[in-house]
Amino acid sequence: MMEYGTQRLVMYPHLNAAGILFGGQALAWIDEEVIIFAANKLGTTRLALVKMSEVKFKNPANIGDILIIGTELVKIGRTSITVKCELRNKTTDKVIVKVDEVVMVALDYNKQPTPHGLPEPD
Amino acid sequence: MMEYGTQRLVMYPHLNAAGILFGGQALAWIDEEVIIFAANKLGTTRLALVKMSEVKFKNPANIGDILIIGTELVKIGRTSITVKCELRNKTTDKVIVKVDEVVMVALDYNKQPTPHGLPEPD
Amino acid sequence: MMEYGTQRLVMYPHLNAAGILFGGQALAWIDEEVIIFAANKLGTTRLALVKMSEVKFKNPANIGDILIIGTELVKIGRTSITVKCELRNKTTDKVIVKVDEVVMVALDYNKQPTPHGLPEPD
Amino acid sequence: MMEYGTQRLVMYPHLNAAGILFGGQALAWIDEEVIIFAANKLGTTRLALVKMSEVKFKNPANIGDILIIGTELVKIGRTSITVKCELRNKTTDKVIVKVDEVVMVALDYNKQPTPHGLPEPD
Amino acid sequence: MMEYGTQRLVMYPHLNAAGILFGGQALAWIDEEVIIFAANKLGTTRLALVKMSEVKFKNPANIGDILIIGTELVKIGRTSITVKCELRNKTTDKVIVKVDEVVMVALDYNKQPTPHGLPEPD
Amino acid sequence: MMEYGTQRLVMYPHLNAAGILFGGQALAWIDEEVIIFAANKLGTTRLALVKMSEVKFKNPANIGDILIIGTELVKIGRTSITVKCELRNKTTDKVIVKVDEVVMVALDYNKQPTPHGLPEPD
Repeated sequence: MMEYGTQRLVMYPHLNAAGILFGGQALAWIDEEVIIFAANKLGTTRLALVKMSEVKFKNPANIGDILIIGTELVKIGRTSITVKCELRNKTTDKVIVKVDEVVMVALDYNKQPTPHGLPEPD
Repeated sequence: MMEYGTQRLVMYPHLNAAGILFGGQALAWIDEEVIIFAANKLGTTRLALVKMSEVKFKNPANIGDILIIGTELVKIGRTSITVKCELRNKTTDKVIVKVDEVVMVALDYNKQPTPHGLPEPD
Repeated sequence: MMEYGTQRLVMYPHLNAAGILFGGQALAWIDEEVIIFAANKLGTTRLALVKMSEVKFKNPANIGDILIIGTELVKIGRTSITVKCELRNKTTDKVIVKVDEVVMVALDYNKQPTPHGLPEPD
Repeated sequence: MMEYGTQRLVMYPHLNAAGILFGGQALAWIDEEVIIFAANKLGTTRLALVKMSEVKFKNPANIGDILIIGTELVKIGRTSITVKCELRNKTTDKVIVKVDEVVMVALDYNKQPTPHGLPEPD
Repeated sequence: MMEYGTQRLVMYPHLNAAGILFGGQALAWIDEEVIIFAANKLGTTRLALVKMSEVKFKNPANIGDILIIGTELVKIGRTSITVKCELRNKTTDKVIVKVDEVVMVALDYNKQPTPHGLPEPD
Repeated sequence: MMEYGTQRLVMYPHLNAAGILFGGQALAWIDEEVIIFAANKLGTTRLALVKMSEVKFKNPANIGDILIIGTELVKIGRTSITVKCELRNKTTDKVIVKVDEVVMVALDYNKQPTPHGLPEPD
């Protein structure tokens, strides 16, 4: 089940030239949130993004909007963790952006994938 | 055919806690580049991201790396334009991130999708 | 009771010259969070900071640390709202920064304090 | 006596969603200035914030405003230094933000408080 | 005579890939300071850069360095003002960057040069 | 001959208080581009700016403008490389900023100038 935690306020530096939330900023917030989610599970922030499944931008966000980010565990691999993530408008509950699978891997000190030590479910 | 234009230098503010290029930063660069690509074709920067197909992170990038961004037109719709985009290491030619389809729509002054006026090919 | 919501990951741009979390960054995160808290209660982000009571920095935070921000309603006035806020290390539960009272006022379109419409408790 | 030095120009990235200077930005400027003040006295920038006494936001600041920051030595301890700091509108001389006591400590290479070597006054 | 006012602390986001102060950051600080200098004289921040004479980078700056910026009036024209500007290391007094003439013009509401109203000296 | 590569989209964080492209931002983009140009030739990003000849700001740029940056090799010295650089509006082809000579030097690990190994032309 999706858990909602981090909230963000859309301010001037987050806008694109059309005056709405810059898509790249939304993706950066998603990336930060899934790293935090994975780090809380795996006990390390030495993580790298490997894949995002299709990213759907459903609604624009405007200056002054409050957004809330939801995350949910999808799958645990030997070196990887897969997380579902969405960004919603806190007031209207409309989805802003949605990604079903964000895959990250744990890195060793040479920045190579390494087992994260969390048991894979059967 | 992919055209390579914009280059970027990886500096400190672009790194994540693992000391490599933050994935969210890479995605923000891709978003900026596809908006520029679309704007050059459509004559407007009033554009919003609608969809990214699967995003593949192939290799990490490190501080001091020079990246080059490639873009290629995939499809033109009535209100939309679809662009392929990748980020490569300029020195090693390795792919950093790759997205086959980034879909944007043109917006009117009420931030609603609007025909961009470019003819759809038969 | 304090509610914990937003999480943040300490990355390079958040560090000061001593290599630890820049105090000004911590305060900017607190300000953003109390504005979000107040906006969720009052239905507006047209808010300005008026006062922070003593700000206590209890422990440093380092790159890669995950922080979680707690907020709690203290008091509601006619134009103001008072919120308690703290920033903790999510892993160790140690307090990073703590403020007992952050006071904000609602603003009208001339940027003057205005009643926010929420009833003051007896 | 308060000495006025650093000036800042309020630009777009400094605004909050209400279109005025973001309080968290003002606090970040104060933090940077007191670190500079302390570093000039103590000969090190290995410093951490420990405490701010009550922070009073007296007047809003708008885009294009020029602000000037004043600092004054309050007290010198064995490992600490206490500085008074205010941010004024350079044109109108109105106070924007004011803090009577910002306390910092010198850090050693393990990021622990360490004597800064400046004599405490009798 | 050069007057020294604004100080800056070199932090992580200001470094280039060589680990020293990014030249572009130094130039942005100079631009902000000469705008502030001109605005204080002319009573407007509606100003645009027109020209910088040769820019000399004399010494690198490192993380933790405190820099101080000096400005001096060179010349007043009908729509323009010319300022000399340098950035020094506050501790060693070494010049970091130096520009003999930074020329700005006042802008009207159509962003066209306009007389700034300050008398040209004979 | 000037080669045009990197494009940039003017967004909110790039504007000054007059609502046009901040000159310091334009100079930061030029600096990043000449470092990239030099790094591609010399095989290192351990480079420092030494000098810019007169910098001419020809036309303002506005939010939503797409800019394209041109670079051209001017001269190769033993430790230095000199590059011509300009920033143009991609749509109107008007020059925004122009610098005839940007001189950089290669640095060794002590941040001192070092021969870059590229042969000087006769």
